[in-house]
Amino acid sequence: MTASNEGALVQPTLRARRLGLHSQHQPIVIMRTDCHVCQAEGLSGRSQVLLSAGDRAVRALLYQVEGDGLLAPGEAALSEPAWEMLGVAQGDAVAVTHAPAVESLANVRRRIYGHRLDAAALAAIVGDVAQGHYTDVHLAAFLTSSAALPLDENETADLTAAMIAVGERLSWNAPVVVDKHCVGGLPGNRTTPLVVAIVAANGLIMPKTSSRAITSPAGTADMMETLAPVHLDLAALKRVVEQEGGCIAWGGAVHLSPADDKFVRIERELDVDTEGQLIASVLSKKIAAGSTHVVIDIPVGPTAKVRTEEGARHLAERMRTVAARSGIEARCLLTDGSQPVGRGVGPALEARDVLAVLRNAPEAPDDLRRRAAVLAGAALEIGGKAEPGQGVSLALTTLADGRAWTKFAAICEAQGGMRTPPVAAQTHAIVAARAGRVVHIDNRKLARLAKLAGAPDVKAAGIHMETRLGEEVERGQPLLHIHAETAGELAYALDYAARAGEIIGVEL
Amino acid sequence: MTASNEGALVQPTLRARRLGLHSQHQPIVIMRTDCHVCQAEGLSGRSQVLLSAGDRAVRALLYQVEGDGLLAPGEAALSEPAWEMLGVAQGDAVAVTHAPAVESLANVRRRIYGHRLDAAALAAIVGDVAQGHYTDVHLAAFLTSSAALPLDENETADLTAAMIAVGERLSWNAPVVVDKHCVGGLPGNRTTPLVVAIVAANGLIMPKTSSRAITSPAGTADMMETLAPVHLDLAALKRVVEQEGGCIAWGGAVHLSPADDKFVRIERELDVDTEGQLIASVLSKKIAAGSTHVVIDIPVGPTAKVRTEEGARHLAERMRTVAARSGIEARCLLTDGSQPVGRGVGPALEARDVLAVLRNAPEAPDDLRRRAAVLAGAALEIGGKAEPGQGVSLALTTLADGRAWTKFAAICEAQGGMRTPPVAAQTHAIVAARAGRVVHIDNRKLARLAKLAGAPDVKAAGIHMETRLGEEVERGQPLLHIHAETAGELAYALDYAARAGEIIGVEL
Repeated sequence: MTASNEGALVQPTLRARRLGLHSQHQPIVIMRTDCHVCQAEGLSGRSQVLLSAGDRAVRALLYQVEGDGLLAPGEAALSEPAWEMLGVAQGDAVAVTHAPAVESLANVRRRIYGHRLDAAALAAIVGDVAQGHYTDVHLAAFLTSSAALPLDENETADLTAAMIAVGERLSWNAPVVVDKHCVGGLPGNRTTPLVVAIVAANGLIMPKTSSRAITSPAGTADMMETLAPVHLDLAALKRVVEQEGGCIAWGGAVHLSPADDKFVRIERELDVDTEGQLIASVLSKKIAAGSTHVVIDIPVGPTAKVRTEEGARHLAERMRTVAARSGIEARCLLTDGSQPVGRGVGPALEARDVLAVLRNAPEAPDDLRRRAAVLAGAALEIGGKAEPGQGVSLALTTLADGRAWTKFAAICEAQGGMRTPPVAAQTHAIVAARAGRVVHIDNRKLARLAKLAGAPDVKAAGIHMETRLGEEVERGQPLLHIHAETAGELAYALDYAARAGEIIGVEL
Repeated sequence: MTASNEGALVQPTLRARRLGLHSQHQPIVIMRTDCHVCQAEGLSGRSQVLLSAGDRAVRALLYQVEGDGLLAPGEAALSEPAWEMLGVAQGDAVAVTHAPAVESLANVRRRIYGHRLDAAALAAIVGDVAQGHYTDVHLAAFLTSSAALPLDENETADLTAAMIAVGERLSWNAPVVVDKHCVGGLPGNRTTPLVVAIVAANGLIMPKTSSRAITSPAGTADMMETLAPVHLDLAALKRVVEQEGGCIAWGGAVHLSPADDKFVRIERELDVDTEGQLIASVLSKKIAAGSTHVVIDIPVGPTAKVRTEEGARHLAERMRTVAARSGIEARCLLTDGSQPVGRGVGPALEARDVLAVLRNAPEAPDDLRRRAAVLAGAALEIGGKAEPGQGVSLALTTLADGRAWTKFAAICEAQGGMRTPPVAAQTHAIVAARAGRVVHIDNRKLARLAKLAGAPDVKAAGIHMETRLGEEVERGQPLLHIHAETAGELAYALDYAARAGEIIGVEL
């Protein structure tokens, strides 16, 4: 069978027009239904097309528009990501053709039908994802397939390697670079700023990048943003760490794991978060940040992300193994996940708890302080700054003597200046329907409540806990306060609270 | 735990502006980044919002736009589906709020994690899908989950029932209403117009609705559209069938299975098509169309959709059982799926084959004629118009004596007037690299080739087969011709042909 390729064709072009349309990761192009390029190329609405200008090309989602209202004949309107990735100026010539087939989708289909993938197949998928070749539908299918048939150890290690390969990679002039990560699922568990401050105050390097919330009411980056700028580019991040030994930056701004940035957005929309993706996400970012050792906090509790000791041990073992295969050492700590940590749930409310601990304020939540000391202690031990068994007391001393607070303030200044967390306009108490003892706290329902109140997008929104497990309460006593910016969001949260069943269980 | 709901809030509104933007099933709203409603509600870009006007509400995807180029302050621009579903006029007041959570997504997550769903859970999912509450990401996750862990018999029957429940349902003043369906995967297998014409010519009722291509180069609706209008609404469909006994209409226009319309678009983007979704899709549409009996064509071949006899028997058995549970009778015929049927692959090229058979033209492909007779024969037998074993000969007679052609022409006229299929501007021969016998034809690669040439969106595009299995060919003799409308599409197809390996296998 023989066939000749006609070779490169001269494409008719359109004039680029900047729409100012923010479409996040998804480049969009809008063309007229009567556009000659649509007709010549046989392009139809809501399909994937390839935009080319000079030596750059970008896949974009095509929408078609009727009439003269939006576009003059011969124009193509680009959304911001399309505009920036193509690097065009107003009126520049842009060619639009069918997007070529994405070969690695065959691997996704094989995975959907239950076939495991090897390193080459995963590398092909991750490469296409990082370059923006996958639509949301393709991303959702890949992520769902790796939730339905969980990634095994080989796949997880191969996915991790593939995700590292497509991103930037930092290096530091130090033999030991430590990091920490919490697998999440526990509202208010905001130890990161404390750990970074303690560890850096003791002379270790900790280039911490954090995510925004995936399915929770606040990620560390959301919380930290109420205290200092977190949108550091790579140069700024390096400068802060070289100056202060640590930083608390938003990982999305430095693109340490560009494929992960794409996965996370879809995981958030699906509210699905799997072990394999979690490990690959965490390790790819830590390794790209140049870490040699990482402490992993795994909260375990009936309504935490990890519900059983057995599940936690499986995750810890898999995390350690894949870390070792990837060339770094992971120490996993199983922690209490039965109730929120501290008092606040939501970016600004958590930030207030963090400040209270750093300042040794009387209202500082002791559970947050001790948990941060345990994690920082482990980091100080594996980083060689404390003898085995001595890490926690060194960490507590570093908090008590104010060195952690001084270091944290210096890091905030280096990141662009310390901020005061905002306070919500609306608060509303949820009170005990009867007297008794608090016997159960549903972390998932609390998280949902805080999200309905506006967290994490609304920084001041969330929950302030007024009670903890084991405490006695009177009938009518506040169990928690909902904080919201608008009456509408408060109403959503109250509506949920009214029909969610038991969020905080009180028994006689 | 007690909480009071603040009750309905008065929402600030924006002025609706019609953009003329075609966004298919996805309603879109564009708002200014500095819009007071975005700020008051805490709305962020690329999120789901609820548009309300009067007593109508529509979920839409929000994009934000910077500056004055597109929108004046106080305006919200709506895409066509949002505009039509809301039923607004230029300048009408539209309220925009957070879209409430979609409760049935919890069922999707359970399904992803391997839990089977009951009738209530599937009904909740399908209800939300039909009402447009699912994003593409949600749809992709649900479909992927039901491919990764295939739907079992109960789930398939429950999904079918749920899909029927959300659509329209036709009734006919006749005890027997027949239908036919081909599970697809065989290029050129365009028997439907022939079967409808034969069956209706013999006095049976056959209200046939067909889909557009899911993953193939042409669906029956795509093909039929080159011969007559297929975009009939329910009233038009009823009129055609009452007048002529049969029709060949596009199912998407009558919304017999509105959830299926949404699933199919995502299945097409994923190129994934599962047994459970297939059965629910087919049966929900047949039952909604009022059919009492249905003949199912299951082509079996190494490169057909169904590859093995065993797979075909499983599908046939499941189809029969679920049909019986849904109150109709299905007869499944396993047919030869080793090579394309007829000569044409692609809407217009297949239409030409159909016309040749109906007109008893000398070039009429005999395999298409005989296959249509087998299926029509089965329909005539289960419909009581032929004794068992006599259906095929009655069908062949109906073709030979011109009654099928007369009936087909009458149906086309009733649907809005007969058309002449278009002819492609570009053709290119793929020739035999050596002399020998044709021993293998790869249906999947042929389909891919036809799609790259522009089918089904470009009606004239596709493939014309110049050889069949078992035929002797000379070196340089055309094996097939690629038909394309543009040089660009021809180039895509030729590029694929050059690197796809063996599409038609020739051996000495």
